[in-house]
Amino acid sequence: MKENNKIPPATVKRLPLYLQCLEQLDDQTIGISSKKLAEIAKVNDAQVRRDLSYLGTLGTRGVGYDISTLRNQLQLELGLVEGWSAVIVGVGNLGSALAHYGGFQERGFGVVGLFDDDPKKINKQIAGLVVKPIADIKDVCDKYNVAIGIIATPGNVAQVIADQLIDCGVKSILNFAPVLLKNIPDIQIRSVDLSQELQILSYYLDRPVLKAVK
Amino acid sequence: MKENNKIPPATVKRLPLYLQCLEQLDDQTIGISSKKLAEIAKVNDAQVRRDLSYLGTLGTRGVGYDISTLRNQLQLELGLVEGWSAVIVGVGNLGSALAHYGGFQERGFGVVGLFDDDPKKINKQIAGLVVKPIADIKDVCDKYNVAIGIIATPGNVAQVIADQLIDCGVKSILNFAPVLLKNIPDIQIRSVDLSQELQILSYYLDRPVLKAVK
Repeated sequence: MKENNKIPPATVKRLPLYLQCLEQLDDQTIGISSKKLAEIAKVNDAQVRRDLSYLGTLGTRGVGYDISTLRNQLQLELGLVEGWSAVIVGVGNLGSALAHYGGFQERGFGVVGLFDDDPKKINKQIAGLVVKPIADIKDVCDKYNVAIGIIATPGNVAQVIADQLIDCGVKSILNFAPVLLKNIPDIQIRSVDLSQELQILSYYLDRPVLKAVK
Repeated sequence: MKENNKIPPATVKRLPLYLQCLEQLDDQTIGISSKKLAEIAKVNDAQVRRDLSYLGTLGTRGVGYDISTLRNQLQLELGLVEGWSAVIVGVGNLGSALAHYGGFQERGFGVVGLFDDDPKKINKQIAGLVVKPIADIKDVCDKYNVAIGIIATPGNVAQVIADQLIDCGVKSILNFAPVLLKNIPDIQIRSVDLSQELQILSYYLDRPVLKAVK
């Protein structure tokens, strides 16, 4: 873990979003106001100014932020210049999709290993990598100094895999299995549950029954 | 859109998480304290009590919440009993993974159409559905009264697809393409950028260079 986590977690969550916003601007744009950035990111502009102040980045009144400086600061703060290595465990549909996902490489994450325990998948080649048995995780983690483990297994084995990854020295886990993993000291765990996003959308949909009741 | 959005967005985001926590408990458990629920969900227990109070659900002091009542209330509030129909546009690796993803069905979302514009993919069968050309979206949306559109296309066509889905009456969009979609009044848009989650993890990783500087 970083010793100086000076940036509040809610701000950290928004930094990748700001970076994405900057990259969607055309190449001609050299400066951006907090208001414009807030509009693209769909957050409040006071929030943008507060978040960016943690980077030591102060916009100039009437001019805004210099885009190339801001982008460099975001990448540095997020550690995207370090070239982290990651492995993916579970190469079903989702694991394969993640292996092919170009966005990881672009952001400085290199996927260096794919693992599965299905004999039909072992030795298959996906996105330029050969799928290996789960027993080989340790060797790959040692060889490439893997920092991030991505879990795309069924829910019932996710905790076992997480424990194994942590034993191999992995410090961060991105979990796509639909279960909540146990908290482990000094290990950062993030879960992406695809159905949760749909459930949030569902809340906002028109519901004639509820409307009549309320 | 629902007329009475009485629940703050930050709370809505946590409701699917609480539901998942309840479902991970063994079948013998009939009650749960806010403290225990907070621990599983990795949030603060005062937050849990405040969030659940929006459902009109009050735990009993010393006993906690009745699990089956709470689960029903969460499902009702999130609209998971309505049986929403969804379509997936783009059936590359990620779209195919989403089509196969069992968690949607379990949560009351039925995927009723898969679309792509790649002639090699059209007419292929994925997860029991035949992939159709994008021109057919309107027919399927009309037939099944589709509420949710899931976009898993490359970034450069995502906005065009979003506009098309909205024209077809879709009210909610879940976007997996790595671009930010425009805000549209009365349309709920959520984006899942898989690389953003990795970037957040990256922030918390040990960085010798930064440590030395700070």
